[in-house]
Amino acid sequence: MSLVVVGSVAYDGVETPHGKVERMLGGACTYIALAASYFTPTSIVGVVGDDFDPQDADLLSGRNIDLNGLERVPGKTFFWQGVYSADMNDRTTVRTDLNVFADFNPKLPAAYREHPYLLLGNIQPALQRSVRAQMNGARLVGGDTMNYWINDYRGELLDTLKEWDFLLINDSEARLLSGESNLRRAAAKIVEMGPHTLVVKRGEFGALLFQKDRYFSVPGFLLDIVLDPTGAGDCFAGGFIGYLAEQGIDAASGSIDHAAARRAVIYGSVMGSFCCEEFGVDRFRSLTRGEIDARFQEFKAFTEF
Amino acid sequence: MSLVVVGSVAYDGVETPHGKVERMLGGACTYIALAASYFTPTSIVGVVGDDFDPQDADLLSGRNIDLNGLERVPGKTFFWQGVYSADMNDRTTVRTDLNVFADFNPKLPAAYREHPYLLLGNIQPALQRSVRAQMNGARLVGGDTMNYWINDYRGELLDTLKEWDFLLINDSEARLLSGESNLRRAAAKIVEMGPHTLVVKRGEFGALLFQKDRYFSVPGFLLDIVLDPTGAGDCFAGGFIGYLAEQGIDAASGSIDHAAARRAVIYGSVMGSFCCEEFGVDRFRSLTRGEIDARFQEFKAFTEF
Repeated sequence: MSLVVVGSVAYDGVETPHGKVERMLGGACTYIALAASYFTPTSIVGVVGDDFDPQDADLLSGRNIDLNGLERVPGKTFFWQGVYSADMNDRTTVRTDLNVFADFNPKLPAAYREHPYLLLGNIQPALQRSVRAQMNGARLVGGDTMNYWINDYRGELLDTLKEWDFLLINDSEARLLSGESNLRRAAAKIVEMGPHTLVVKRGEFGALLFQKDRYFSVPGFLLDIVLDPTGAGDCFAGGFIGYLAEQGIDAASGSIDHAAARRAVIYGSVMGSFCCEEFGVDRFRSLTRGEIDARFQEFKAFTEF
Repeated sequence: MSLVVVGSVAYDGVETPHGKVERMLGGACTYIALAASYFTPTSIVGVVGDDFDPQDADLLSGRNIDLNGLERVPGKTFFWQGVYSADMNDRTTVRTDLNVFADFNPKLPAAYREHPYLLLGNIQPALQRSVRAQMNGARLVGGDTMNYWINDYRGELLDTLKEWDFLLINDSEARLLSGESNLRRAAAKIVEMGPHTLVVKRGEFGALLFQKDRYFSVPGFLLDIVLDPTGAGDCFAGGFIGYLAEQGIDAASGSIDHAAARRAVIYGSVMGSFCCEEFGVDRFRSLTRGEIDARFQEFKAFTEF
């Protein structure tokens, strides 16, 4: 069932130990939507400048992503540039030009408002909240955030989270948000803040799923080579929500079916792993649903005992 | 079936964010043997000084560990002192007094030589090799090593590894030994060095098992509190070899049955997790086989999808 994704559409300059790309399509919304598009009809809300390349729009449309909510305004598209460490577990931001994204004020096309699934990428919590208010009928709502909002916009963020079904963050963010260094206790606090389902992403070490009285843990997929990890966390989010939307899973009962949420975490892990195999969004130019389902089965094969 | 464990028996001084103990029983051989003793008859080979506390010997004997190979010589027992970082993923050695361990030259009691299982704790590779030679009839042999031997005794270590069925090391050691930063490629190189089965320990992030054309990955157990991680890797080794010995699994076919090796990795993870729940070896004063098997089932419960 239809999904709305809100967040940044950007150009990225990325350097990893395996190469350097000066400028390529990026942004959380882009990655989330591309990953989700393998599972469910996906519509995006974002903003780009007049330098946005029609070929990049074509890549998204080619995956049947609805671009009616992608605003085009005079000026330049958000640009981010970063360099990864030798083991690719750290990265340094070299440049961040918000450009037209600085004034991003997400407006949903009327047709979007009836969509049942909503994924709020990492933007200012007040903006996430305003989108949430525009989609009051949504059956499943969740998203991402980051250290900056947790530290400097805490009150606003906590108000925003109250209205979410799930939260997807990384382990350091979970510790920061909860004030607990132990992840199990951190999770117990967070699932009381509003999102009854918490997914903690741990990069190459996999992911954790927490609900009130249950948890699930999956190790990372061991890739032979990681060309570029940019966007992997967003692709995880896209696979997670995409699978739940495809299966029509909602939170009407006050929770997300635990077994479905486990499978959604695996699909998230699968999409994150594919993302790392090529630079930027390149893997999505060739990736098929058959490859995705085959890797889901690989996860079963290397974790069963 | 009977297992021989060789390595350090020591006293440790440990400080973690949860407390400080000036002096307590420790050493790789101690932890490995205590963990293995829940699965199989276990005999140790080590050396202690005349300061070795009879109550510590009683703890080991109380777990039916055969101490005939524990040499007592004039002088002081090996002493190690360390302080853990706030997240307990790093530790700083404050003091290392080798004492009587400096001249450790493992001599096996005649009765040990017919035992079918051998676990070589982290000691000088030439010593590991000499013990291996004293147990030519062993049906399954493996052990541990560390950065120091990999860097400074490489040739000797490679000769030693040629005669092992399995190697248990951590991820940074696997990278160092293989010269490959990618773990999948690192493992492919190591399983050509002699040990056809490689277990890579990743601390709180779990463990990986590699054989020629298969691998297995398990995430770490999420503890509510980690009091002291000292010895957890050694307890992993003890649970791993202990389970294989209990089941009578050997490498006569040129490999270790893959499904059994997976279960052994889970038992290793279980024993490592219990070790962290109290300081030093304290958890083994109360731990029961029932608790161990219950946690094995918990691993199933939080990893299945």
